[in-house]
Amino acid sequence: MTGTKDRIVDATAELFRRQGYTGTGLKQIVGAADAPFGSIYHFFPGGKEQLGAEAIRWSGRGYLELFEAIVDPAPDVVTGVGDFFRGAADALLATDFADACPIATVALEVASTSEPLRQATADVFDSWIDAASTRLIAAGIEEEPARTLAINFLAGLEGAFVLSRSLRSTEPIEVAGAAAVAAITAALPKPKRAKRRS
Amino acid sequence: MTGTKDRIVDATAELFRRQGYTGTGLKQIVGAADAPFGSIYHFFPGGKEQLGAEAIRWSGRGYLELFEAIVDPAPDVVTGVGDFFRGAADALLATDFADACPIATVALEVASTSEPLRQATADVFDSWIDAASTRLIAAGIEEEPARTLAINFLAGLEGAFVLSRSLRSTEPIEVAGAAAVAAITAALPKPKRAKRRS
Repeated sequence: MTGTKDRIVDATAELFRRQGYTGTGLKQIVGAADAPFGSIYHFFPGGKEQLGAEAIRWSGRGYLELFEAIVDPAPDVVTGVGDFFRGAADALLATDFADACPIATVALEVASTSEPLRQATADVFDSWIDAASTRLIAAGIEEEPARTLAINFLAGLEGAFVLSRSLRSTEPIEVAGAAAVAAITAALPKPKRAKRRS
Repeated sequence: MTGTKDRIVDATAELFRRQGYTGTGLKQIVGAADAPFGSIYHFFPGGKEQLGAEAIRWSGRGYLELFEAIVDPAPDVVTGVGDFFRGAADALLATDFADACPIATVALEVASTSEPLRQATADVFDSWIDAASTRLIAAGIEEEPARTLAINFLAGLEGAFVLSRSLRSTEPIEVAGAAAVAAITAALPKPKRAKRRS
């Protein structure tokens, strides 16, 4: 039965990413998860809100792992961040501009309407800011500017996702990626030249 | 009857801003607009999608006018952009983090689900990018870097709105505003020192 629960959370997360929280119905979730309807309330007695919070946190961990998997093996943090933005642009193109931030749509929908769901999105964003800050600090940047750079990097990415999905263009992601790379490069203690695939 | 139509569009735009497209029902709209239910289909034979597109474009023009009203009287574009971000932070605080971008929630919801609504959000974002670019070009920046700066400014603002609403903090808006001010200052032909209210 663990497999069923995972499939439900996975399907919910994917539907949230593409169409948000409000537009995703429980029937659609069980259909996508190939699960019986009753299994939702079996695993999530709190219903859609409880399932939603778990899907948000699950998506958040998954995207964090993607960030780590791209940035950590890179020769330096500047290259890693550049690669991450390029990967985001590739994912947009490969999915007809559907797959961007897994939680942004839900975050905006629930910010003023559900405190448990808002808190779940806040925990995810905090975890991402921490992950980026940690890597910038490891690269030799002081704690406070590292946090500022991390917030800027994430804000640029999130805003570029909004614009890229709406405009059906990777230009905003490319522009935001170049800005993040430039800002981090400028903040590094000994300016290293990032290896760019020009 | 023009008054009724305006009230419907106005109420729709306000509901979209706070809770998005999918979460906003026609009954809620007519309630907020103090209008008879039938008036929606009288003014918008295409129903919710047609009304939604008009509300998106109406919101987009309103926010553009707000941008112009803040930036144009400022002594220079750097001061104006700084003022705009400060105004956005003040609006978030004054509305318990509800009032941010009027169309971002809808833009993410509809990007992969409704082509007419996606197009309406794209037209609005394009109009904002053009408005910012025009003012940067007037300040002496070349066309291409002006467009890049405008996209970065808007991406930073949009992403900061997502983070600020979720985290219930104006820190992301302040960080994004400082980055926009710094980027524009650096791009100006003769670096002018912006008057900052430190």
